[in-house]
Amino acid sequence: MGKGDLTRLAILEHAVFLASQVGLDGLTIGRLAVDLDLSKSGLFAHFRSKEALQVQTLALAAERFTELVVKPALRAPRGEPRVQALFDRWLAWPREFPQPGGCIFVAASAELDDQPGPARDLLVRLQQEWLDVIAGAVKIAVAEGDFKKDADPAQFAFDTYGIMLVTHFSSRLLRDPKAWARARQAFSSLLAAARALPS
Amino acid sequence: MGKGDLTRLAILEHAVFLASQVGLDGLTIGRLAVDLDLSKSGLFAHFRSKEALQVQTLALAAERFTELVVKPALRAPRGEPRVQALFDRWLAWPREFPQPGGCIFVAASAELDDQPGPARDLLVRLQQEWLDVIAGAVKIAVAEGDFKKDADPAQFAFDTYGIMLVTHFSSRLLRDPKAWARARQAFSSLLAAARALPS
Repeated sequence: MGKGDLTRLAILEHAVFLASQVGLDGLTIGRLAVDLDLSKSGLFAHFRSKEALQVQTLALAAERFTELVVKPALRAPRGEPRVQALFDRWLAWPREFPQPGGCIFVAASAELDDQPGPARDLLVRLQQEWLDVIAGAVKIAVAEGDFKKDADPAQFAFDTYGIMLVTHFSSRLLRDPKAWARARQAFSSLLAAARALPS
Repeated sequence: MGKGDLTRLAILEHAVFLASQVGLDGLTIGRLAVDLDLSKSGLFAHFRSKEALQVQTLALAAERFTELVVKPALRAPRGEPRVQALFDRWLAWPREFPQPGGCIFVAASAELDDQPGPARDLLVRLQQEWLDVIAGAVKIAVAEGDFKKDADPAQFAFDTYGIMLVTHFSSRLLRDPKAWARARQAFSSLLAAARALPS
């Protein structure tokens, strides 16, 4: 990796922090230049446009999410343990990659839902991929006999994402100290409902 | 209601529409003046500051939410029917009070979670009140014997709000046509888990 790449990465890491707080729309080359004490023209050379900066910021966050959440969880044994690992790794995500304004994907989802463009397109693809990862692990848990035959993988992924969103909401907006315990309780009920009865 | 009050209400209705799309931060007196073809000085006379405008916009949306969702649901019979009615009325909320950018409370929750001030304070109070309304109906359903004695009202409210958030996300960002059916399925599982076994 050359010096240019390292600079680009460092800029994008800061861009994720910033976007989590001020939104992708507040993420301007001018603001980054001030924060990082870099020249605007240098930043333009890296990113060309605000739109490209937004897309690359989301892409970097997605890369980190894959490394810190998805890959380690997929190393868990097939079946319920892997489904549980995906949830546990997701719970660890704010610690492993601190974003002062909360998860950039949650913030961007509310911001971009009515803003067509390449950033929205990428976000939709990333979120759909994450739901598919959860649904895929559930499908394997059904095949392994851990979950009931009629457990619905897409519904399970939907329900899990609901727990993730309300945990974010409850911990960040309401500052409810019980948010994380409630998240674990909700997921454990979801697992209990999906689990196959001992034959 | 005087003419000034009616004008104020009409302005605030438009402010809710606008804030659902551009966020409360994008809701400026200048933008409202252009949209509604009113003078900026006239708008300043109504609202004094952007902060006051934000607070009054949230307060108007909350008033509509109470009229269209909470009050009709609280007329349902005590017990499970009332819990179900709260969910059903919430599902109807986007139809009854269309907000082009999605629910203003969901959008504002992601936006204001790290922005201290009177708008955030009001939003936290409103969201907590809504969770308390759900939890209160669950408590009654326990007392009526519809729900298990150990059903946890605050956990139920948390879980329900998760379904609401993921439905918003799934319908608006992912444009998943199954979002509403999944919401009903998720809530029906939640009810099934809380329901008392026939004695």
